[in-house]
Amino acid sequence: MNILIKDILALLPDGVKTCSVYVSNGVIKSVSTEPEGFIVDKTIFGAGKMLIPGLINAHTHATMSILRNCADDLLFDDWLFGRILPLEDKFIEDDYYWGTLLAIMEMLRSGTTSFIDMYFYLDVLVRAVDETGIRAVLSRGLIDPGELKAGEERLKEALDSYGRHKGHERVSFMLAPHAPYTCSEEFQRIIAQEAKRLELPIHTHISEGLVEQATIKDKYGCTPVELMDKNGLIHDKTIAAHCVHLSDSDIKTMAERGATIVTNPVSNLKLANGVAPVPKMLKAGINVALGTDGAASNNTLNMFRELTMLSIIHKGINHDALAITAQEGFAIATKGGAAAMGRDDIGEIKIGNVADLVILDLECPNMQPVNNPVSALAYSTNGSEVETVMVAGKILMENREFLTIDSERVYHEVSKICDRIGTR
Amino acid sequence: MNILIKDILALLPDGVKTCSVYVSNGVIKSVSTEPEGFIVDKTIFGAGKMLIPGLINAHTHATMSILRNCADDLLFDDWLFGRILPLEDKFIEDDYYWGTLLAIMEMLRSGTTSFIDMYFYLDVLVRAVDETGIRAVLSRGLIDPGELKAGEERLKEALDSYGRHKGHERVSFMLAPHAPYTCSEEFQRIIAQEAKRLELPIHTHISEGLVEQATIKDKYGCTPVELMDKNGLIHDKTIAAHCVHLSDSDIKTMAERGATIVTNPVSNLKLANGVAPVPKMLKAGINVALGTDGAASNNTLNMFRELTMLSIIHKGINHDALAITAQEGFAIATKGGAAAMGRDDIGEIKIGNVADLVILDLECPNMQPVNNPVSALAYSTNGSEVETVMVAGKILMENREFLTIDSERVYHEVSKICDRIGTR
Repeated sequence: MNILIKDILALLPDGVKTCSVYVSNGVIKSVSTEPEGFIVDKTIFGAGKMLIPGLINAHTHATMSILRNCADDLLFDDWLFGRILPLEDKFIEDDYYWGTLLAIMEMLRSGTTSFIDMYFYLDVLVRAVDETGIRAVLSRGLIDPGELKAGEERLKEALDSYGRHKGHERVSFMLAPHAPYTCSEEFQRIIAQEAKRLELPIHTHISEGLVEQATIKDKYGCTPVELMDKNGLIHDKTIAAHCVHLSDSDIKTMAERGATIVTNPVSNLKLANGVAPVPKMLKAGINVALGTDGAASNNTLNMFRELTMLSIIHKGINHDALAITAQEGFAIATKGGAAAMGRDDIGEIKIGNVADLVILDLECPNMQPVNNPVSALAYSTNGSEVETVMVAGKILMENREFLTIDSERVYHEVSKICDRIGTR
Repeated sequence: MNILIKDILALLPDGVKTCSVYVSNGVIKSVSTEPEGFIVDKTIFGAGKMLIPGLINAHTHATMSILRNCADDLLFDDWLFGRILPLEDKFIEDDYYWGTLLAIMEMLRSGTTSFIDMYFYLDVLVRAVDETGIRAVLSRGLIDPGELKAGEERLKEALDSYGRHKGHERVSFMLAPHAPYTCSEEFQRIIAQEAKRLELPIHTHISEGLVEQATIKDKYGCTPVELMDKNGLIHDKTIAAHCVHLSDSDIKTMAERGATIVTNPVSNLKLANGVAPVPKMLKAGINVALGTDGAASNNTLNMFRELTMLSIIHKGINHDALAITAQEGFAIATKGGAAAMGRDDIGEIKIGNVADLVILDLECPNMQPVNNPVSALAYSTNGSEVETVMVAGKILMENREFLTIDSERVYHEVSKICDRIGTR
């Protein structure tokens, strides 16, 4: 399958220019120059549009889209223990499928082509990812509250799923010790060993809230980063979500180990956790990626909104108008996520990269006039400009129509789940 | 003209319910019960949709949409003196018309039915508002840098425009001393007197940045609020934008005088000014409204994005998940703005109110499932859900098509202006 994206304003590694992009068998074959013998199967005309690399949502819980807007304006404990956990307890296996499909719809609709997830029922999630055509890194959240054996069973479950789906074209896996306060030290070390043995990356939550800080300090006399580092979980294949309350020494550790931090600015504000010191992380040379967290705390999976927040919050909080520029923010939302996934063949439009591409409509009021297109991406988009999305050269949404998902059916099934578990 | 909005999920003052809303000659005639002898001219079917009062953008500079995304990631002085002012100097009269049309398109597109503006060339702005059908409160920014006479000429200009358009059905006026640092004390007092004489409200900027704080302290030995209060500009017909750096005593003054504060969270973050103490303002009983500021500092006029920011930023900064709830945020974006305009007949869906109404599409991934609709408005919208907008019962946008604006023409004319003045 050869696709020609013709005469489009494209965001290339060295800037924005109007050119044609040639996609062949899922790969970017050429930029500007027509490759020899390129027989076009499909042409997309680029007038009034912009081509960007797909956004990478580097930390989410897709299934939780079922719980969108059902638990807001609550204190953290009321949110988690009073509302979210009791609802999650009522999920049956099929719910994970429909919830993940809804999340994938929202992500494609707003220009996300890859996501890194932590949840349950990996086989079901793989099915949703497989059918829709999106790219994902999946992990099963691992906890051992007071019982190591239960934790080990969950780990085995995760490894079994991994075994069944290893080598999938668009799905890869991580091991996910949920958080320093939900995994015993012994369990943390076991996970670290298994991850090393199987060469699997680590996906975890660290230092999300002040209560976590205090709990770990009380119990272990150190910071969450120090604890997980001691147990072998902080290294160059680790991605840690949140990291809101890192000390300068924690930042140094994360940098030295080569770990990735996934910042989740909207969720951190909404759950009253605060603002992560992202400019300091970048200065320390840490790879930073961007994630929405789940829709129960965000309440969307819109990476453009997240990018706007990332690009303005640090300016305001630090009284520094240059804290994170539009260009830096966009790189975090794309290349930062690609690095978090351990990939150097997505996140940029360049020859040889996999064609995970997004086309935006510029002919809408908030994108006019077209002055600085990179500024537009960070500051004036709302996500609805996304018109067409392809992953590995396969078009999944075209002119805002989903080609691989029956949206009416998804809305209907998710609504039935909500009626059953009582979210309204 | 009688419009029936049939069986729609409507946000009423006492909550959300599915009902029919009857609009007759621009006014909400009935909610739920069919009025006697109501002959329907047009029916809008509400299945899968939501009806809300139109949002009120209580502080903006509409024309500046021409400068969207052309001056970002700059220190404040570089932004204002190096980029914005030199570009504004190149505007010719006609540019204000096209820039304001673009702004009105964006506002209607994202559910805003009224805006409060401060800029120049009031006659031109009136023309744009008049033709498009939106509702606006206009003011001419007044400054007298080192020359009172020049300030007085500007004031006369503003009053002449007011005289020409007084009594317009959808346009009203305020007097706008630009800021404490751009108006001499004498000029402030003159404006205060004229406003009193003509019963015109005051629209101003107060305490936007730390430099302003320091400048006023140096020059007058007081805070910006104290200065303007002393000169008779803080009273119950005053609306003050920004107010980022108010002391507790300033907040007390604003409350005692009955002034409105318009908070602009996105612009305040993006220009590195900080976060206004909105929860304290609310606690003091101040009427708070919400505004986007101009597109040169936001860079959109999307009130849904602003509402999300308002509803989450104070949670995160104050570590208080209940700082401003979805319900409070939405009231600020509607009723708060109505009060800023001095009106009690817009901002809510109730019998007798003017029909400034917005219909949202709920059948999009980010609005599904429909759990708590008020949460959805604050936390999961992006503005693109807006489908149909009416002002005073006249439909201005229907199924996302503008009925009173030629959008292609506006894009074309604004693009020509950008080429001429050099924004790219």
